[in-house]
Amino acid sequence: MISEAVIKRLPRYYRHIKHLADSGVDKVSSNKIATVLNITASQVRQDLCNFGGFGQQGYGYDVVKLKNELAVILGLDKEYDMIIVGAGNIGRALTGYKGFRDDGFYVKALFDIDPRCSSINGIKVYNMGDMKQYLADNHTDIAIIATQKDSAQSVADELISAGVKSIWNFAPVEIEVPDGVIVENISMSESLYVLSYRAKNNN
Amino acid sequence: MISEAVIKRLPRYYRHIKHLADSGVDKVSSNKIATVLNITASQVRQDLCNFGGFGQQGYGYDVVKLKNELAVILGLDKEYDMIIVGAGNIGRALTGYKGFRDDGFYVKALFDIDPRCSSINGIKVYNMGDMKQYLADNHTDIAIIATQKDSAQSVADELISAGVKSIWNFAPVEIEVPDGVIVENISMSESLYVLSYRAKNNN
Repeated sequence: MISEAVIKRLPRYYRHIKHLADSGVDKVSSNKIATVLNITASQVRQDLCNFGGFGQQGYGYDVVKLKNELAVILGLDKEYDMIIVGAGNIGRALTGYKGFRDDGFYVKALFDIDPRCSSINGIKVYNMGDMKQYLADNHTDIAIIATQKDSAQSVADELISAGVKSIWNFAPVEIEVPDGVIVENISMSESLYVLSYRAKNNN
Repeated sequence: MISEAVIKRLPRYYRHIKHLADSGVDKVSSNKIATVLNITASQVRQDLCNFGGFGQQGYGYDVVKLKNELAVILGLDKEYDMIIVGAGNIGRALTGYKGFRDDGFYVKALFDIDPRCSSINGIKVYNMGDMKQYLADNHTDIAIIATQKDSAQSVADELISAGVKSIWNFAPVEIEVPDGVIVENISMSESLYVLSYRAKNNN
């Protein structure tokens, strides 16, 4: 059982190692990784040991190999079809986010209670009433909830009853889901509150 | 010294308690808080003890009092002036985010290397070349970096040399800052990788 704290650090490792690989770096020490990520070198070694320990003493980590291993661990060796529910500021911004495709995440459709455009950034916009049928016809790995907070739970319920197993929640509310369904929350307000906490205690 | 893990949970407590207060709830038990946040009741009690322990045995927590105490702890009892650097999808979406104002965060200006609009959602858009002068003339508590990753560090350096102490980073890269400057990262790709990790291991 990998701890939550380790799981949360894995993407940071991956992002940094991918950057090194893209920059043509061959190998890297745990010390160097630690400095960039602002954690200790022993933490780096311990974390990566959880997944098999790819480093060699006195040599460090093979960057390309580590990148590929981390990608497999993170499930980035496959492709994911996604839909976005909610065509407000956030939903629209997400249709234009180029990083998704680089990592194998494909936005296939956007749903809104009041679709004002037929497509946004090349993504077709459907009426919410058509979501159930869409999900019956199209395999969907991940649904992004980008609605107002008041409708987030009912949207989640609808997604889950249509068979969606993974939800990425941008609405500022806790969503309850049954066992077997995954929710990952990305909350701007939570991140901002952490910042204001730190700013207040920064003296 | 409050641990990182506790600091990261505080905003979730605040958001939930605020929701209860807005719904007219008077008191709440640690058990009920724990259920919604998907942590244990003893964790809730322990976390809140770090800040003085507001609950009473057999009664629970006074919702309004707890909300106000948490707001003070999180630094939400004051107002913050913010600027956004980068008028791409994310920067533009942030100008329209109504949640900021409710919590006392005010977006005052937007900067871009190629400003195509004079204002977005009522926020004036300036050329990057004018940022130094703007920061000299206008007290700014928080700068939001919403640029491409390649320019995030140089933008941060410029902000810091102009006296900005708190940075909220939306660019998908680790930013290095000197002591006394705070960076809070909000990374969509990291959140998405956690989701794909969980989806992969959800069997």
